[in-house]
Amino acid sequence: MAGNTFGDIFRITTFGESHGPALGVVIDGIPPQIPIDTEDIQRDLDRRRPGQSQVTTPRQEKDTVEILSGIFDGQTTGTPLAMLIGNRDQKSEDYNELKDILRPGHADFTYLQKYGIRDHRGGGRSSGRETVARVAAGAVAKKILTAAGIRLYAYTLAVGSVKATTIDLSVIERNPMRAPDMAAAEKMVLEIERVRDEKDSIGGIIEVVAKGVPPGLGEPVFDKLQARMAHALLSIGAVRGIEFGAGFKAATMRGSQHNDPFTVKQGKIITASNNCGGILGGISTGGDIVLRLAVKPTSSISSAQSTVTVDQKNIQTEIQGRHDPCLCPRIVPVAEAMLAVCLTDALLIQKTR
Amino acid sequence: MAGNTFGDIFRITTFGESHGPALGVVIDGIPPQIPIDTEDIQRDLDRRRPGQSQVTTPRQEKDTVEILSGIFDGQTTGTPLAMLIGNRDQKSEDYNELKDILRPGHADFTYLQKYGIRDHRGGGRSSGRETVARVAAGAVAKKILTAAGIRLYAYTLAVGSVKATTIDLSVIERNPMRAPDMAAAEKMVLEIERVRDEKDSIGGIIEVVAKGVPPGLGEPVFDKLQARMAHALLSIGAVRGIEFGAGFKAATMRGSQHNDPFTVKQGKIITASNNCGGILGGISTGGDIVLRLAVKPTSSISSAQSTVTVDQKNIQTEIQGRHDPCLCPRIVPVAEAMLAVCLTDALLIQKTR
Amino acid sequence: MAGNTFGDIFRITTFGESHGPALGVVIDGIPPQIPIDTEDIQRDLDRRRPGQSQVTTPRQEKDTVEILSGIFDGQTTGTPLAMLIGNRDQKSEDYNELKDILRPGHADFTYLQKYGIRDHRGGGRSSGRETVARVAAGAVAKKILTAAGIRLYAYTLAVGSVKATTIDLSVIERNPMRAPDMAAAEKMVLEIERVRDEKDSIGGIIEVVAKGVPPGLGEPVFDKLQARMAHALLSIGAVRGIEFGAGFKAATMRGSQHNDPFTVKQGKIITASNNCGGILGGISTGGDIVLRLAVKPTSSISSAQSTVTVDQKNIQTEIQGRHDPCLCPRIVPVAEAMLAVCLTDALLIQKTR
Amino acid sequence: MAGNTFGDIFRITTFGESHGPALGVVIDGIPPQIPIDTEDIQRDLDRRRPGQSQVTTPRQEKDTVEILSGIFDGQTTGTPLAMLIGNRDQKSEDYNELKDILRPGHADFTYLQKYGIRDHRGGGRSSGRETVARVAAGAVAKKILTAAGIRLYAYTLAVGSVKATTIDLSVIERNPMRAPDMAAAEKMVLEIERVRDEKDSIGGIIEVVAKGVPPGLGEPVFDKLQARMAHALLSIGAVRGIEFGAGFKAATMRGSQHNDPFTVKQGKIITASNNCGGILGGISTGGDIVLRLAVKPTSSISSAQSTVTVDQKNIQTEIQGRHDPCLCPRIVPVAEAMLAVCLTDALLIQKTR
Repeated sequence: MAGNTFGDIFRITTFGESHGPALGVVIDGIPPQIPIDTEDIQRDLDRRRPGQSQVTTPRQEKDTVEILSGIFDGQTTGTPLAMLIGNRDQKSEDYNELKDILRPGHADFTYLQKYGIRDHRGGGRSSGRETVARVAAGAVAKKILTAAGIRLYAYTLAVGSVKATTIDLSVIERNPMRAPDMAAAEKMVLEIERVRDEKDSIGGIIEVVAKGVPPGLGEPVFDKLQARMAHALLSIGAVRGIEFGAGFKAATMRGSQHNDPFTVKQGKIITASNNCGGILGGISTGGDIVLRLAVKPTSSISSAQSTVTVDQKNIQTEIQGRHDPCLCPRIVPVAEAMLAVCLTDALLIQKTR
Repeated sequence: MAGNTFGDIFRITTFGESHGPALGVVIDGIPPQIPIDTEDIQRDLDRRRPGQSQVTTPRQEKDTVEILSGIFDGQTTGTPLAMLIGNRDQKSEDYNELKDILRPGHADFTYLQKYGIRDHRGGGRSSGRETVARVAAGAVAKKILTAAGIRLYAYTLAVGSVKATTIDLSVIERNPMRAPDMAAAEKMVLEIERVRDEKDSIGGIIEVVAKGVPPGLGEPVFDKLQARMAHALLSIGAVRGIEFGAGFKAATMRGSQHNDPFTVKQGKIITASNNCGGILGGISTGGDIVLRLAVKPTSSISSAQSTVTVDQKNIQTEIQGRHDPCLCPRIVPVAEAMLAVCLTDALLIQKTR
Repeated sequence: MAGNTFGDIFRITTFGESHGPALGVVIDGIPPQIPIDTEDIQRDLDRRRPGQSQVTTPRQEKDTVEILSGIFDGQTTGTPLAMLIGNRDQKSEDYNELKDILRPGHADFTYLQKYGIRDHRGGGRSSGRETVARVAAGAVAKKILTAAGIRLYAYTLAVGSVKATTIDLSVIERNPMRAPDMAAAEKMVLEIERVRDEKDSIGGIIEVVAKGVPPGLGEPVFDKLQARMAHALLSIGAVRGIEFGAGFKAATMRGSQHNDPFTVKQGKIITASNNCGGILGGISTGGDIVLRLAVKPTSSISSAQSTVTVDQKNIQTEIQGRHDPCLCPRIVPVAEAMLAVCLTDALLIQKTR
Repeated sequence: MAGNTFGDIFRITTFGESHGPALGVVIDGIPPQIPIDTEDIQRDLDRRRPGQSQVTTPRQEKDTVEILSGIFDGQTTGTPLAMLIGNRDQKSEDYNELKDILRPGHADFTYLQKYGIRDHRGGGRSSGRETVARVAAGAVAKKILTAAGIRLYAYTLAVGSVKATTIDLSVIERNPMRAPDMAAAEKMVLEIERVRDEKDSIGGIIEVVAKGVPPGLGEPVFDKLQARMAHALLSIGAVRGIEFGAGFKAATMRGSQHNDPFTVKQGKIITASNNCGGILGGISTGGDIVLRLAVKPTSSISSAQSTVTVDQKNIQTEIQGRHDPCLCPRIVPVAEAMLAVCLTDALLIQKTR
């Protein structure tokens, strides 16, 4: 309702501002007897953390997760699993000069319109840092998915006009772009460095694939699998669009091209092609679920921008601090986490049938 | 949970199959003392109805709405408003030959996988006819939006590669394509006729715009306005993608281009451009909300397609009956209805602040 | 949210006023492949219907259920099951004289305060007639419970100071009081006739028992089984209190008396006594669930009462028409229905573990 | 769904076990700009804390609340308010001997049946300690209620057969029983000491009153105010029954006695009496809301009890440690907190009308 909870059965509730004492998440509805190790979660948090390469910001905000409840003898008990990630290096005073400035592309203005009050330190609840709690929750969800034979892959498909031309899932974690194509990754890095030198930022495209999803997940009508996934993934701040399977290309296709014929393979009915992106009528087909996200260029740029203050004065502003010129590598683990939460929920809902 | 309810405060619950006695919707959470006339709803149902032009199917299934509850002396009472739309001309026997065939692009296979049973007559609950209940609910939502000064526009932006080049909102209802450009509309009709002659179908793009939305609607984090709208609109069967503002184009833009500077106009803070599509940080800016939908080509085509039967036999099938070669004109009122429901809900949620 | 939906997974949404065209219910989340016969539902509606004996009102409002959706070939399909019960013999003009009178014990005043408008004809949505939709939903829930080996019993335990002294479940449907004691039932009838002659009404107590409930249903903390059941049963208009197991008597008991020792019977752990009413820590023990409801005397009485009009004039009013002097026999099937819905929901939630 | 969240708009989600690192609560949907001081919350936690008098256990578990998010410059921001209360003095080893024993009256058996695993240390999530998070949330809710002119009072009405005979709200916090009658409080203390000497425990009755509730709160049908309140209050572990207004006494009353006539006082319509407990048709009348709770005797008693172990062996057990012989004084602040949360939610829901 107020937007800090996602999921019907596997429900995550997040809280925390970038400059408060901590961020966290409470997961309710988690099945009992799932083995959970802090290491499982820490690994994903480390993947999300900036300062890991030349294309991400050099801040060293090592995030350490603390599990507060819901685990006994290394297993979930069925009660809420709460996790806390403390904030460090909070220099709130750095933000005082931003107190009255409405930064272009940020939520400063809209929060003020909505609530009549805002925590201006580092974006408060609208900070990208909020996603740390999602990644922690996603790590737990992935334990359940893995046990069900479902594997998720997210990667940077394009940065500006530089596109991956091959999809090699094995190289994603071996380049700083999280691209599935080592050669393209090198060009992406060059593009990002050029953009940074020009005190600017650049958008990109992320692709997410779920393999091993059993047929039958998702609900007809309002909770179609693609609708729930779009809800989950468009809740990530910088995402401006989503498409499934053939996506926007379907707008120029013929039905005879776009329809995926059914066929039989090893005794099972499958679709021979996958323009539908693994979903028909809102329900999984058993094929790969494939979706793409449009990621906008980072709003924080260090070149001068025109804007106004809270009291309507025109000013020029330059956002200080170092920011990632392209958000894709940072969003990849968040997109994976949100898809994991969404699929886990769909998996548990299907058990009530 | 089971997917037939949408909304948190303004909640719509729909029911009914294409070949049962009736479809309907129950709206709960509707504020009291809203004047509602059956004519308001009938007008939108008539817009949705096929058989109105050369580009839609000639079936004459005039839909008549019956209000069962929630209205007294022409006004809402605050209790659930239930509406019923009867089915006519149900020739279930027409569908018997389809009983065992898994039609490409349809939900036949996935329903069977999900439930182990399916009503094969006309697609049952997955039929496009299900949207009639959404349009009825949307008509009620629009009464509330209109009173709040919010106006919605939906139109066909493209059919295949034929695109509208001007946006004239006044002509939308004056051409069978519901395009905002009379010249483009003519070309779209020609394209559709060509596709139909080839026993095929074609996709397209719909744009939806909301004007007069006050700043402050939408929730941060998981229920960002774009996330809820994506949920609402991707729940329409044929929609395969959605983008807001600059959308997928943002992936190739620079931050300096994409950021919308704030400025002051007539004493109010607004964004000078609208690449953000009227939403920042998940909350409305007060600018126009602009989104686009990718619509897939109609799955039902009359040319021969390869597929399999329930018992895994390979067959060729030709879908009988006349179907719209392009779904855009039919989906335009449904998209408008879903956006209306979504915005009404956001408007009521904001009252709790 | 707006109160016309109950349940998390097995969700019922009801609608309709006593003097509109129809009342109804939509059930979402119903598992597929449950055999449903209109007769199953009609039987429970017939039990609820007044005019069956000397202790209920002689109105002959035979209620006929129509199933609109969700059934195919005699089985549920997993899609929403909608049911309609038409209103007959609506003489709205009978109520015109009540238009401005705030009847003691009725919701006339509070609806007006809440909504600023009210449908005064027969109580509108607050009419006891609203419960017909609950009974229809309960009949469907009971099909699922029966398949799971769960049986429900509800009966009139007391009318005023006349109490059943034996509990013989086999006689409940054999006396007009729905009492589990034929001798007590006769005295109850005499008591009711006396009260009616005095143009008055009388309260009573209903007991509800669920047998065969497996251990493990219900959620800890806020959704304890007794909390959900209390929610379900106190939503019936005339119910003023609820107690589980030893109930209010527990307030004067010692722990050594009240604690139910665990013991082993036929290889299973059970409680040797049942002061806990079949629930410990909010979760079913496997023992009988036992609860009692306090039912207030009927608000509509034909003797003169002092009250005021909408425009604050003091008046005397006598409620015309014949009303049941004791609501217990009418509420027994409604209580059974609500418990059925609540337990079905708990049963389906437990499947997600 | 999984039971650790309560409320529709003002939503509280609690987590934590008695022997984990901490317990906590996340409040979502809290309106912005409510002044909150840690002291407001600490005061209520101190009231809940045991070890304050001769009738409660001498454990000195001083609970200190830490606010993690949602407050800026002393005011709520509209984002989730998370609070943490650390656990101290956890001697988990004390509980090892209880590992296999199914304590009578406790949730040991049912948790094991539900989840197949349980945290046996101190009752885990079923511990009374769980209520500390509710009290913290209630303190926040009371800030909103106070601003709306609503005041809550909860007190011990009876311990065993010792009853308060006068209701003096000013003395509640001046006696260890939290009774509204100083003379009765002395007798209650004597009764409790007697019971303790006998290594036993005793039940009691709590009354809760809400004054200043505006008319119009609560929803018709399933979310009647009494139904939601019963849900809230029966979610407290030891509560076995609830009644509103005349309650179970209504079962023996006549309609002519029980109906509260409407009258006009100082230009406002009110009920002249209050047998309805301030609620008609599920909606507040504007009169005092009055309800009573049956509290069972403490399950943990130090005299010998027969029971069985997890592996079905018969044993005798004596619960070690000091436990409150009567839970009423401890539950009074929890009941007040839950009513506060429930009413705050109803107040915010009504704003959507």
